[in-house]
Amino acid sequence: MAQGFSPAFPGMIGEGNLEVHTMNDVLDFINTNRDRYVEELKQFLAIPSISAMPEHQTDVRRCAEWTAAEMSRIGLENVRVIDTAGHPLVYGDWLHAEGKPTVLFYGHYDVQPVDPVDLWQSPPFEATVRDGEIYARGASDDKGQVFVHFKAIEAHITKSGRLPVNFKVILEGEEEVGSVNLGPYVKAHAADLASDMVLISDTEMFDRGVPSLCYGLRGLVYMQIDMRGTKGDLHSGSYGGVVANPANVMAQVLAQLKDRSGTVKIPGFYDAVRALRDEERAEFRRLPFNEVSVKKYLGAPRLFGERGYSVLERMWARPTLDVNGMVAGWTGEGSKTVIPATAMAKVSMRIVPNQDPVAIAELFEAYVKKITPKTVDLKITRMHGAMPWMTDFDNIYVQAAGRAIEKGFGKRPVFTREGGSIPVVATFQEALNVPCVLFGFGLPDDNLHAPNEKFNLDNFFQGILASAFLYQEVAGIKG
Amino acid sequence: MAQGFSPAFPGMIGEGNLEVHTMNDVLDFINTNRDRYVEELKQFLAIPSISAMPEHQTDVRRCAEWTAAEMSRIGLENVRVIDTAGHPLVYGDWLHAEGKPTVLFYGHYDVQPVDPVDLWQSPPFEATVRDGEIYARGASDDKGQVFVHFKAIEAHITKSGRLPVNFKVILEGEEEVGSVNLGPYVKAHAADLASDMVLISDTEMFDRGVPSLCYGLRGLVYMQIDMRGTKGDLHSGSYGGVVANPANVMAQVLAQLKDRSGTVKIPGFYDAVRALRDEERAEFRRLPFNEVSVKKYLGAPRLFGERGYSVLERMWARPTLDVNGMVAGWTGEGSKTVIPATAMAKVSMRIVPNQDPVAIAELFEAYVKKITPKTVDLKITRMHGAMPWMTDFDNIYVQAAGRAIEKGFGKRPVFTREGGSIPVVATFQEALNVPCVLFGFGLPDDNLHAPNEKFNLDNFFQGILASAFLYQEVAGIKG
Repeated sequence: MAQGFSPAFPGMIGEGNLEVHTMNDVLDFINTNRDRYVEELKQFLAIPSISAMPEHQTDVRRCAEWTAAEMSRIGLENVRVIDTAGHPLVYGDWLHAEGKPTVLFYGHYDVQPVDPVDLWQSPPFEATVRDGEIYARGASDDKGQVFVHFKAIEAHITKSGRLPVNFKVILEGEEEVGSVNLGPYVKAHAADLASDMVLISDTEMFDRGVPSLCYGLRGLVYMQIDMRGTKGDLHSGSYGGVVANPANVMAQVLAQLKDRSGTVKIPGFYDAVRALRDEERAEFRRLPFNEVSVKKYLGAPRLFGERGYSVLERMWARPTLDVNGMVAGWTGEGSKTVIPATAMAKVSMRIVPNQDPVAIAELFEAYVKKITPKTVDLKITRMHGAMPWMTDFDNIYVQAAGRAIEKGFGKRPVFTREGGSIPVVATFQEALNVPCVLFGFGLPDDNLHAPNEKFNLDNFFQGILASAFLYQEVAGIKG
Repeated sequence: MAQGFSPAFPGMIGEGNLEVHTMNDVLDFINTNRDRYVEELKQFLAIPSISAMPEHQTDVRRCAEWTAAEMSRIGLENVRVIDTAGHPLVYGDWLHAEGKPTVLFYGHYDVQPVDPVDLWQSPPFEATVRDGEIYARGASDDKGQVFVHFKAIEAHITKSGRLPVNFKVILEGEEEVGSVNLGPYVKAHAADLASDMVLISDTEMFDRGVPSLCYGLRGLVYMQIDMRGTKGDLHSGSYGGVVANPANVMAQVLAQLKDRSGTVKIPGFYDAVRALRDEERAEFRRLPFNEVSVKKYLGAPRLFGERGYSVLERMWARPTLDVNGMVAGWTGEGSKTVIPATAMAKVSMRIVPNQDPVAIAELFEAYVKKITPKTVDLKITRMHGAMPWMTDFDNIYVQAAGRAIEKGFGKRPVFTREGGSIPVVATFQEALNVPCVLFGFGLPDDNLHAPNEKFNLDNFFQGILASAFLYQEVAGIKG
């Protein structure tokens, strides 16, 4: 499966030090056990571990216990189910690779609800293979991707009695309900979870046949603006022209946040933005991305964004600003002649390295205060913030992952970023402050959170190979 | 009661030709029958003619019949209750003043619901006099004001056997539910209702002790703007910076409708506006109007409107534009990171003579189309339009009304306009095209449509005197 390795970026280093003949045994083992892997994955997928539904609470715990048993079976040690205020965590490790880096792997064993269940072509908890895809709730998000690592670990330990690196596994059962208990646990046990890299397999590839490594995420600053013009709503006949209308004022303020060429007008907003490197822009240009088909898929008359940047650059690496919601006055049927007393808008900014959420919130507040006329009372609320995240794509761990994917998939991966935030990445970044690799094997059409969720079996098998290679590659990194 | 007459405006003419000794008899009759008037009005107010509530349907009809009986009793002829698809109309006339003008009087006998009934200090259908005010549902709106004319008619016919003018009365029982059957009836019977002036007593005086004549109303153009950016809502992380956000676009468009000095930016919007005459501006300046107390009453940080015009000028005689409602995206609690697929806004313009609602709607559409970028799909809907209305304040009928008020109230009236529309004025204007006089005796604190509706008894009695004088004054106008 593995093709010749050709370094695409500076900073790439050579293969790890696992004996080649042992690695070949590992790969052979993986390639000859595919049918068994599918059968075992079906068992994992059969447990309806829906974390959002109280009636599935015992199923979630049963799934944690099944997972722990599997982790022990494949050779992980210190395996335990850890109770939390919600659903349990599962931990296991293998720490006998003296002098080698330590990998902390994160995944989740809980799944989304399945309604509307009528739209499933096969029962969501009876995994079914059709046309090279395995259909079940959790197939891709995230049981299938967790299982990729279980099988890579199993292959290494079975064939060589050891892992090439030190390895810690932390799985949660609350990812689909906000991961409320993960963060406090990770912070409280940062020393126990200490590692050289965090490895997360819960994301997608750029496209079918396009393995990818995501090395950056945007952050978020989410604000709410409330304006009040008068004590109560007024009749627009009696008072139109007499008082400022907060809906009109809100529109004026919102219109001044971003100009018609897509540039955010908040003074200082772009000051801390880390410019895209030429290598990154070149990498993005290599991607099979078709603006016309995106436009069609979204049903947008035209695409629109900051001038001077491609769609992918705008989506992944440039900050932006959106009105997420606004409301004032009468919004039902017909024509009510009211001057609303109040207007509300929710505005969020996607931010990029090295913008700081607090600094951006402060700039936003100062500007909105400045441009809002004294004819209305103004209140600005900070709703939510998330740090942007980025591990340089030439980071040694990212590059090791790149080589592993190239070997596992027979194809050089593309290096991507993403427009959204992934809260667990921020959680680990804050608590552990080590590089994080998003090593994801899902596909954009995997129907996450929807009926007929699936996982591509080629990605499953190649993911196991890539994971097996990754441990070997990381072992070659000098700490 | 009547004081010396001093013409305040050019175009005023002398008194009518009713013999002075007869007019004195009429006034004496009115002044000596006050107690009886109150008792009779209480009977009228006792009928719960709530047009909006089906369970009061028979009460509404009973009220129409009571009204018809009273009209016959006071000497009107051809009295009849006219069935409609809803509540009945009541008609009566007296047409024996050969060579004299014909007055068409409009009023309504239906009333608003009374909830929350707990907040009434006395039962809404047991009229109670306290401190010179009569409290009951319909006291001011509009039974008390209709009764003013009944008693003025009665006094004339009782004392002189005739009215000084030809008189037609049309009353409806659906004013509080949108007057849906009045317009078609008036249009279909325009010849029967032909007259030289329309007289409506269903409005307020400017303030307590400030009798007034309203000679102008603003019209209305009410539009809805719908924008669509994409087929469905998008995640703002995944797509922020990629597509135009219709909420942002809507804000930009709304912000361009009116500038920060309160001037409407739609090209051509002001072209047909009839400038305020110096006499009108002088008249408005005479009014007891306190900007500080208005600001306090409304709870507004500041008043705001078109530069170069006073508050009353902006309220009554200048067109304006307001966002009456807008909505897009997530408006509930918290921070949903969505790029809304659609945005909607309701925008209305108050228009003044000689702006035309259709022409203004066309200007609005052309401008909004021009300033809306091609990144969103745009739909503009014409929701509602109403003609502005104005009878010059030096119109002979308006001036006759002014003299009548001066005689009835012992005080020169102020000549005002109003910011809103009164649909029945438009109905009569369209069907009959004659001057309309708004001869109203309510007060701003009469609690219309609210608990503890009342009518000031001084205004009731002086209104009867003023009405008796009005018929005499109109009789003096040469057709």
